[in-house]
Amino acid sequence: MKSYRVPVQIVPRPGILDPQGAAVAGALRTLGFDSVADVRVGRFVTVDVNADSAASATAAVRGMCEKLLANPVIEDFALEEPTLQPDGRP
Amino acid sequence: MKSYRVPVQIVPRPGILDPQGAAVAGALRTLGFDSVADVRVGRFVTVDVNADSAASATAAVRGMCEKLLANPVIEDFALEEPTLQPDGRP
Repeated sequence: MKSYRVPVQIVPRPGILDPQGAAVAGALRTLGFDSVADVRVGRFVTVDVNADSAASATAAVRGMCEKLLANPVIEDFALEEPTLQPDGRP
Repeated sequence: MKSYRVPVQIVPRPGILDPQGAAVAGALRTLGFDSVADVRVGRFVTVDVNADSAASATAAVRGMCEKLLANPVIEDFALEEPTLQPDGRP
């Protein structure tokens, strides 16, 4: 059994209001970053799982996203490639 | 002037306590995901900026991270490759 790290990007779905992103965009403009057109704020979750293969690690984390990590009504999620962790989290 | 989308990953630095990640790991185990070893929760921010080139878009967003988006004491950030947005955010 090996340990894999699977990063997950969770973002508000297109069209869903993102007040946190709007607040950040406003703050950036106040700081002088006039080139900002839009900001969306989501979550970046890294999950370390014990699995026999990268494919089964991905499948497990996909299940976690569907059950708990992401709200499918308002959020989209994308899994990045799993990376093998030689000796656990540093 | 073109519009670029620059995704940013912001994660708790190694060694920094992440109570949100610990809570999520506990919730996943309660749901039966026994293979979970560790979870870290950060933010995933996508910034749309007007810039002349991908390089200048990246430089602008790096400045935003250093000034506002990330807290360098407790967080690391990583910028992904900018993507050209043909007609603004969908």
